[in-house]
Amino acid sequence: MRQSRIFTRTRREAPADEVSKNARLLVRAGFVHKEMAGVYSYLPLGLRTLGKIVGIIREEMDAIGGQELVMSSLQDPEIWKATDRWEQDVWFKTSLKAGGDIGFGWTQEEAITRIASQQVSSYRDLPFAAYQIQTKFRNEERAKSGIMRGREFLMKDLYSFHASQEDLDAFYERAKDAYARVFARVGIGAQTFVTFASGGAFSKYSHEFQTLSSAGEDTIYVSREKGLAINSEVLNDDVLADLGVSRDTLEEQTAIEVGNIFKLGTRFSEPLGLSYKDEFGAAKPVVMGCYGIGPTRLMGTIVELLSDEKGLVWPKSVAPFAVHLVSLARDAGDEVARASDALYEDLQKAGVESLYDDRDLRAGEKFADGDLLGIPTRIVVGKDAAATGTFEAVDRATGVVSKLSREDILKSNFNTK
Amino acid sequence: MRQSRIFTRTRREAPADEVSKNARLLVRAGFVHKEMAGVYSYLPLGLRTLGKIVGIIREEMDAIGGQELVMSSLQDPEIWKATDRWEQDVWFKTSLKAGGDIGFGWTQEEAITRIASQQVSSYRDLPFAAYQIQTKFRNEERAKSGIMRGREFLMKDLYSFHASQEDLDAFYERAKDAYARVFARVGIGAQTFVTFASGGAFSKYSHEFQTLSSAGEDTIYVSREKGLAINSEVLNDDVLADLGVSRDTLEEQTAIEVGNIFKLGTRFSEPLGLSYKDEFGAAKPVVMGCYGIGPTRLMGTIVELLSDEKGLVWPKSVAPFAVHLVSLARDAGDEVARASDALYEDLQKAGVESLYDDRDLRAGEKFADGDLLGIPTRIVVGKDAAATGTFEAVDRATGVVSKLSREDILKSNFNTK
Repeated sequence: MRQSRIFTRTRREAPADEVSKNARLLVRAGFVHKEMAGVYSYLPLGLRTLGKIVGIIREEMDAIGGQELVMSSLQDPEIWKATDRWEQDVWFKTSLKAGGDIGFGWTQEEAITRIASQQVSSYRDLPFAAYQIQTKFRNEERAKSGIMRGREFLMKDLYSFHASQEDLDAFYERAKDAYARVFARVGIGAQTFVTFASGGAFSKYSHEFQTLSSAGEDTIYVSREKGLAINSEVLNDDVLADLGVSRDTLEEQTAIEVGNIFKLGTRFSEPLGLSYKDEFGAAKPVVMGCYGIGPTRLMGTIVELLSDEKGLVWPKSVAPFAVHLVSLARDAGDEVARASDALYEDLQKAGVESLYDDRDLRAGEKFADGDLLGIPTRIVVGKDAAATGTFEAVDRATGVVSKLSREDILKSNFNTK
Repeated sequence: MRQSRIFTRTRREAPADEVSKNARLLVRAGFVHKEMAGVYSYLPLGLRTLGKIVGIIREEMDAIGGQELVMSSLQDPEIWKATDRWEQDVWFKTSLKAGGDIGFGWTQEEAITRIASQQVSSYRDLPFAAYQIQTKFRNEERAKSGIMRGREFLMKDLYSFHASQEDLDAFYERAKDAYARVFARVGIGAQTFVTFASGGAFSKYSHEFQTLSSAGEDTIYVSREKGLAINSEVLNDDVLADLGVSRDTLEEQTAIEVGNIFKLGTRFSEPLGLSYKDEFGAAKPVVMGCYGIGPTRLMGTIVELLSDEKGLVWPKSVAPFAVHLVSLARDAGDEVARASDALYEDLQKAGVESLYDDRDLRAGEKFADGDLLGIPTRIVVGKDAAATGTFEAVDRATGVVSKLSREDILKSNFNTK
C-alpha cells in the first residue's frame, strides 16, 4: 500500500490523558483512535495487525475442531437470572422501547448453553466445541491500561461440550496446547507462563496464561525450573506439594493475563437444562469447558513487551506489513522514484505485503515514522541503491543492516509466520 | 466439512413466534438462532454465508479505494449533541459506573468525522474514503422482519471525504456503481433498482437500492423503461420531469431497502470542526458522503427472494459450501462409503468447498435436509455411482440433473462466483 494514500498520520504527542504505554504508542502511530477512556477505534494499520492476531487464533481454534459462530451482544435477562449472574456489577444494561431490560454481553456461557440445548439430545451429539470472535462490553470502574482493559474489547471465547469429565479433561489439554501455540506464534511465548489458579466447584484448578510485564495487573509466582506459575490466590503448601514446587524457588512477578481456560463442569448446563441421553436412555447434564483470549488485549501486550523508545516493534506474524519500502526520491519522476516504484511493483507481484513510503518528506521524517510504525523490515531506496541495484534492509527489532540485491529481496520470505 | 461433525441440526418447525419467512427458514436450517425478537446469533452455516456476503462487499469497497477500520460501538454523547442527534429515539443508552451517559452506535457519521478531524489539515490529505463492517444497535419499536430489521445487525458503512462538491459527486457515482456490483454478485441484481429519494440540504436526491419483494416495508414506483425507481416521498411532477419519466409508466411495488447512499455535504463537518486548508491557506469545511449496506439484511433479502417451498436456495457466490456431497452408504465400511470418502477427499484436494453428508440417516431425510440447506450443487453417491463411477449432480435452484464422472466433477468450477 502506498503510504501517501493512508488517511492516518503519525503524531509526535500522545493524548495528554493517556497513561498506558501501549495506547500512547498506538495512538501516535495512527493504529488506534481513543474515543474515551477504555474505548478505542481501530484505524486501518491497527485493524490489519488485529486481523493477523485474530487469524492466528482462528487457525488454532479450527485445528482443535472449534466451529466458529457469532452470538448476539444483546442478552436476554432470563438465562442470566437462571444462573444468578444478572445482578453482577459488570453489566451495561439498557431497556427496550418495546418494554423490558436487556444487557450487553460481557461473556456468553449462558447464551451458548441455551443454543446448545436446542442442538443436543443424545450422547451421539457430543462432544463439540464452538467459538466466536466478538466484541464484549464491560462497565469497568477504571480503564487506564489502554487497549489491555477496555470497556469495549474483542474476545475469542471457545466453549466445549462433553458427555463426561474424562472427555472434557482430554479436550482441555488440547486447548491448553493450542493456547501455548497462539502465544508463541504472536511472539510472546518465552514470557508467557501457564499459571495455576483457583478452579471452582468442578475442578481443583483453572489455568491462566500470564505474560511477564510491569504493565500487568496480576501478581504471580513463577517457577522457572518447572516452567509454570502460581496465582497468589492459590499459593499454599497443598498446591506447592501438588505441583512439586518449593516456595523458595518461586519468583514474584507482575504479569498480564492474556488467556484463561476453565472447566465449568455442569455449572451452566444444570440451571439451563442442557442435558443429553446416554446409551441407556438416562438423561445427564452436559459437561462444559470455556476458554478465553482477548485479541485486543493481546495486541496491547505485544506492544508493552516488544516496543522500544523509538516506537512499535511488530513480530513478522502480526505486523500490518512485512516490508516498509522507503523511497528517498527528491522528485516524483527521478531515478530514485523510478527504482522505488519498480521494486514496489516487484514486491506486490511476489505477494510480499509492503507499505511503500512514497511521500514527499525528508529522509529523517520517514525514518522516524518507520521506527514508530514498527514494520519488521525496512528497505531503503536512495541514490546509491538506484544506481547499483543493491538495497539496504534494516531489521526493526535488532537494527541489523543487510545489503540485498533485488533478487535477494524477492526470494526472502518476509511473510514467514 | 463432514456434516456429522457440525453441531447444529435442522428442525421441522420454526419457532412459533417467528413470522418472517427468512428467519423461519434460517432457524429451521440451523443457520441462525433467535435470541429474542430482532436479535439473532449466527451459527456456523449462517456465519459462513454471512462471511461470503461480507467478503464481496469488502472487495467492492477496496476496489473504489475504501480503507477499512473498525470504530467503537460505545459513543461519546458530546459529538452527538454537537449535531443534535443525541436526543433521537433510536438509541440504546446506558450509563458508566464511573459516571456519565453513553450510547451504542446505530450509525457513525459523528465518530468518523471526529477521527477525520485529527487526520486532515490540508487539501493534500483529501480525498479519502474509510469503511467498517460492524455491529450496530437500534432500539426498534417492532422487529418482525427476521434478520432484515434487527435490534442488533451488521452494517457496512463507508464515509468519503472531499475538498469539493465536484469531487464528492465523482466519488458518489463510483460508489453507486460499486453498490450495483455488490447486488449483482450476491444474486439479486435483476430485482434491485436504484431509487431516487429525498436528498436533504446538500443534494436534491439521495439514492436507495430497493429490491422488489412482498416482504419489504417500502413502497416504490418502478420505471422498467429507465431501469430506476422513485421513492413515494419524492414522487412529484418536478422529479418526474427531472428523470424524464411519465407517471403512467410507473409500477407501484413493495421493496426491501438493501442499501442507501447520501451526499452529506458539510452537515457533520461544520458542527464537528472538520476543515482543511486549501491551496491559498483558507480554512474550508470538508465535504462528505456516506454509503450503507446491511450484510445481515442482505442475507435475509436473498432468502426472501430465492428460497422455495423446500427450503433455502443460495447463489454460488454466497453459499456456505459449493457442493453438498450426499452418501447413501448403509454402513461406514461399505463400497458406497468408500467411494463417498474418496470423492470427498478429491473435492477437498481440488479446493472445492464441500459439505459431506456422512451421517447415518435414510436417503429421504438426507435429501430433505439438503433441500432445506440450499447448497447449489448436490452430488449423490449411491450403489450405482460407486459401481460405475458416474455420479448424479442436482442443481438446487433448477432441479436439473446431470450425470458426471469423477473427472467432470473435479474440473467443474463449482466455486465460481
